[in-house]
Amino acid sequence: MEHRIIMSDLPAALEEAIAFNDKGLVMAVAQQHDSGEILMVAWMNRESLAETLETRQVCYWSRSRGKLWRKGESSGQTQKLVELQIDCDGDSLLLRVDQKGVACHTGRRSCFYRSLNTDGGLDDTLPVVTDPGKLYGA
Amino acid sequence: MEHRIIMSDLPAALEEAIAFNDKGLVMAVAQQHDSGEILMVAWMNRESLAETLETRQVCYWSRSRGKLWRKGESSGQTQKLVELQIDCDGDSLLLRVDQKGVACHTGRRSCFYRSLNTDGGLDDTLPVVTDPGKLYGA
Repeated sequence: MEHRIIMSDLPAALEEAIAFNDKGLVMAVAQQHDSGEILMVAWMNRESLAETLETRQVCYWSRSRGKLWRKGESSGQTQKLVELQIDCDGDSLLLRVDQKGVACHTGRRSCFYRSLNTDGGLDDTLPVVTDPGKLYGA
Repeated sequence: MEHRIIMSDLPAALEEAIAFNDKGLVMAVAQQHDSGEILMVAWMNRESLAETLETRQVCYWSRSRGKLWRKGESSGQTQKLVELQIDCDGDSLLLRVDQKGVACHTGRRSCFYRSLNTDGGLDDTLPVVTDPGKLYGA
């Protein structure tokens, strides 16, 4: 029986289409599939993408920690993959997901909660819906 | 009378909030403001962002050409800035825009027109609505 390496295999069409950068990464935008909200932007490598496709639970690559980042692993705020899209030049992915709870570590639904106002300042546009202390058991 | 440098100035709150990378760039996701469609992902530097805020017409930084990329300058498919948002760690911008015509150089509304199917292949999900030859006068 052949040994099949699941976690680092990508479908051939994806491997051909994705232009991983010189660090082996591709950026990924997560969008709530039904509402269209942009939730966050992060990076993936081959391994995190292959795991995401296998489990249908989104896994990123954490550049700061240098390891796989299984979204929601500690906070419970997971992202279920609904659809994977890729852009024309292959250097960005669009993850259409179903976000459980909040995407942002600040306890807001989306990481994009600051908006430039007409005075050149930044307004908070989204409420904290979950206490970050509860998310991370502080 | 003081000379005011407009094109490289950013509002102080933005300058403080944005984490430009080691090449002086920040990624930007363009989203149609009313429909929620993700149109494209590109990069900005301080100059392109300052020009965008000044003119309200989106200008990116082209990494391949090493110059300002005034979106739609040759194709006429401009993006009007409606709202600028920034994420929690400051390394991504969300440009809520009004896209004239098509965002993609292939003549499709969005650059994200390929979707992974259940067989591991990529399906085209958006039609070509404008002949690319017409967009670029070929």
